[in-house]
Amino acid sequence: MLEQLKQEVLEANLDLPRHKLVTFTWGNVSAIDRSSGYVVIKPSGIPYEDLHRDQMVVVDLNGNVIEGDLKPSSDTPTHLVLYKAFPRIGGIVHTHSPWATSWAQAGRGIPALGTTHADYFYGEVPVTRPMTEAEIKGAYELETGNVIVERFRDLDPDMVPGVLVHCHAPFTWGRNAHNAVHNAVVLEEVAKIASRTYALNFNAQPMDQDLLDRHFLRKHGANAYYGQSSS
Amino acid sequence: MLEQLKQEVLEANLDLPRHKLVTFTWGNVSAIDRSSGYVVIKPSGIPYEDLHRDQMVVVDLNGNVIEGDLKPSSDTPTHLVLYKAFPRIGGIVHTHSPWATSWAQAGRGIPALGTTHADYFYGEVPVTRPMTEAEIKGAYELETGNVIVERFRDLDPDMVPGVLVHCHAPFTWGRNAHNAVHNAVVLEEVAKIASRTYALNFNAQPMDQDLLDRHFLRKHGANAYYGQSSS
Amino acid sequence: MLEQLKQEVLEANLDLPRHKLVTFTWGNVSAIDRSSGYVVIKPSGIPYEDLHRDQMVVVDLNGNVIEGDLKPSSDTPTHLVLYKAFPRIGGIVHTHSPWATSWAQAGRGIPALGTTHADYFYGEVPVTRPMTEAEIKGAYELETGNVIVERFRDLDPDMVPGVLVHCHAPFTWGRNAHNAVHNAVVLEEVAKIASRTYALNFNAQPMDQDLLDRHFLRKHGANAYYGQSSS
Amino acid sequence: MLEQLKQEVLEANLDLPRHKLVTFTWGNVSAIDRSSGYVVIKPSGIPYEDLHRDQMVVVDLNGNVIEGDLKPSSDTPTHLVLYKAFPRIGGIVHTHSPWATSWAQAGRGIPALGTTHADYFYGEVPVTRPMTEAEIKGAYELETGNVIVERFRDLDPDMVPGVLVHCHAPFTWGRNAHNAVHNAVVLEEVAKIASRTYALNFNAQPMDQDLLDRHFLRKHGANAYYGQSSS
Repeated sequence: MLEQLKQEVLEANLDLPRHKLVTFTWGNVSAIDRSSGYVVIKPSGIPYEDLHRDQMVVVDLNGNVIEGDLKPSSDTPTHLVLYKAFPRIGGIVHTHSPWATSWAQAGRGIPALGTTHADYFYGEVPVTRPMTEAEIKGAYELETGNVIVERFRDLDPDMVPGVLVHCHAPFTWGRNAHNAVHNAVVLEEVAKIASRTYALNFNAQPMDQDLLDRHFLRKHGANAYYGQSSS
Repeated sequence: MLEQLKQEVLEANLDLPRHKLVTFTWGNVSAIDRSSGYVVIKPSGIPYEDLHRDQMVVVDLNGNVIEGDLKPSSDTPTHLVLYKAFPRIGGIVHTHSPWATSWAQAGRGIPALGTTHADYFYGEVPVTRPMTEAEIKGAYELETGNVIVERFRDLDPDMVPGVLVHCHAPFTWGRNAHNAVHNAVVLEEVAKIASRTYALNFNAQPMDQDLLDRHFLRKHGANAYYGQSSS
Repeated sequence: MLEQLKQEVLEANLDLPRHKLVTFTWGNVSAIDRSSGYVVIKPSGIPYEDLHRDQMVVVDLNGNVIEGDLKPSSDTPTHLVLYKAFPRIGGIVHTHSPWATSWAQAGRGIPALGTTHADYFYGEVPVTRPMTEAEIKGAYELETGNVIVERFRDLDPDMVPGVLVHCHAPFTWGRNAHNAVHNAVVLEEVAKIASRTYALNFNAQPMDQDLLDRHFLRKHGANAYYGQSSS
Repeated sequence: MLEQLKQEVLEANLDLPRHKLVTFTWGNVSAIDRSSGYVVIKPSGIPYEDLHRDQMVVVDLNGNVIEGDLKPSSDTPTHLVLYKAFPRIGGIVHTHSPWATSWAQAGRGIPALGTTHADYFYGEVPVTRPMTEAEIKGAYELETGNVIVERFRDLDPDMVPGVLVHCHAPFTWGRNAHNAVHNAVVLEEVAKIASRTYALNFNAQPMDQDLLDRHFLRKHGANAYYGQSSS
């Protein structure tokens, strides 16, 4: 069942240590098959070096395990909320990548400070509000998804494919699992460069809006002209 | 004698350079066999790449060498004090891992700033008080253990499996040698992220207590639900 | 056509990930054949690991594709402006190497703070002025070249083989593609050391002019005495 | 001639890139044969990957080339001054290792902030005074050695085996080439940890003198008890 998607999710998970985004098992990738509404996700707590395709867990959007002998990632409810709220995304990544996590712990969104950022994120990578006691003590992982969705009320998740969860760590997404990992790598790089920018210039300002538009639209949308695609 | 424990201690020592926790010979791992009270520890000053199982030194809790041709680590007395004072720990690691050492040199404990920390340490990783002239000039390594134990008078070493020795470097521990190394890796990662958090937000505050509880208890204790264990 | 130059440009592009100057496809190298006025450049958006010599694109100084099935780098117009304005350079590199990019985002040139810098750059590595709305919305990549040339009105590009484009990233150049990559590596190293210098000394001053002269001229010009050349 | 010493110097030079102390050719190691007074040193500007034993250059203490087809390192006069002034050292290393170079550019010595430092350097790693115009324009590399010796007028080079040359970079030394490289690695690590310590605690103070004594003497001198030696 969904063998190709399982393979994609496996490879995307293995890309996390390859890109140095994770320590031990601190990360997970999922992908959704939109026709069936089934989500494939990493099992909880299994080291990447031991991971096999057949261990990938299939769940439905209500969190019921459809296939798989192992427990899905404990962050599964967060993933499911995002798939329901963001209908065009196909893959989600959660890591504790250290630079992005520093911003999450600092409670600061990452402003768009330069073209590296603008090539992928159309404006600030936002940070969620602190969660309430009720949210933390209740269905915590589901509520984590809810505060992300709340933060994106006026944002387009296809234009800003990532978020920092307050005092926690980043989530990124994309059109599929591979693309979501790509965005996780970019976010970590952008977080690093932004931290160092502020170290050099405490009053660094967000970049010019025209420059942000130019770079984002050079790579995205109908008039993109970066790369080899003919569009 | 204790061949399996020697093998575990050997492998745990070899994990230190693999996880980039040590330069040259700046670290050591030990483990205890609680039934006999014997401790297996790395010999002093031997490079990791030359280390063999048969070189591991067996000492009793009073520091007498029971087996082995080499001198045990010069930090052995510190390890022994901790094994005596913390009856449920099975392994101890000492390194000069650079991020944690920076906090030790700064004389600051590492506050719990986010969930990465909370998954492993239930609150601040404390720093010991400066040692007195008498302690330094006396049985220095033994007194190093004593100031750690003093610092944990009101702390549970099973909930906070590590410490920063003032102007020195970290010690971590765990249920066995492998787990103690695991905690040493986490401490270094947590120290790095915390340093960068303060660079971004000079007034960063410790995380919400409910969130700390949620994350620590998600991974530890009777109601843990992270990973594949059935408990 | 220009097979040897294509091979040099291919190898110089492959050197970018080898020196950890690029993430994904965030960089490109070109070289010029001054006799024909043809420029060889990386195709746009192709991962380095898939790059072959036959994919290198040949363009003339007006940007017309002379040979090649793929689209040239979207930054090609910037390269061409520089080749026209700086008649002695033979190769150009553009990357988003993180330390240099931090300086570009901070809007600060990198002062000559020590001999590492002075061995390659005769004075500050300058930053361009912010681009105007008209420049950004117009022929953006060509205008990027123009602001670099404007910044070098009173500077010698052979003495200062690199620049930071404001809110963007560095360009470096050299007598050929290989040498331009060499300067890109040096710039990243110099940017890193300079950032850390300011962290230690907020009021660090540019180095003594005599020392700058001594080191630059030790490696460059008629009286150079570093290395094995007999000049 | 001096084949074994050449082999040692070759290997010590190759250790520089292995320990990530150098970019390109930015470093050199020498050793002295005290019985003949001959010094073996790396040739100038040769990449480490191309280096062979037969390329090592033999010079006397006046800088005359005794054997070798290549020019010796341009820093040779600095090495020779140090061998003459510090009679018990057997090897010297010069690098532009980035953390130590940051301190040199900041014009600050590295205080002894913790036991990692104290295990190798008995007190601050000093920085030289700025060189005068006459020194820079004169026999620059020889004068570089002279300002180092001047800085050590009241310091013991066997207790503090390294220095930061102002606005330049570090030199370290030791009982032989291998030991000098060892100290270069330690200096870079100590410089890194010290930088991060000040980032966490702007007012960090030098460590307690008793603790400095204890650690230095634990590894050095008649009463050393670290490692396997019987002394």
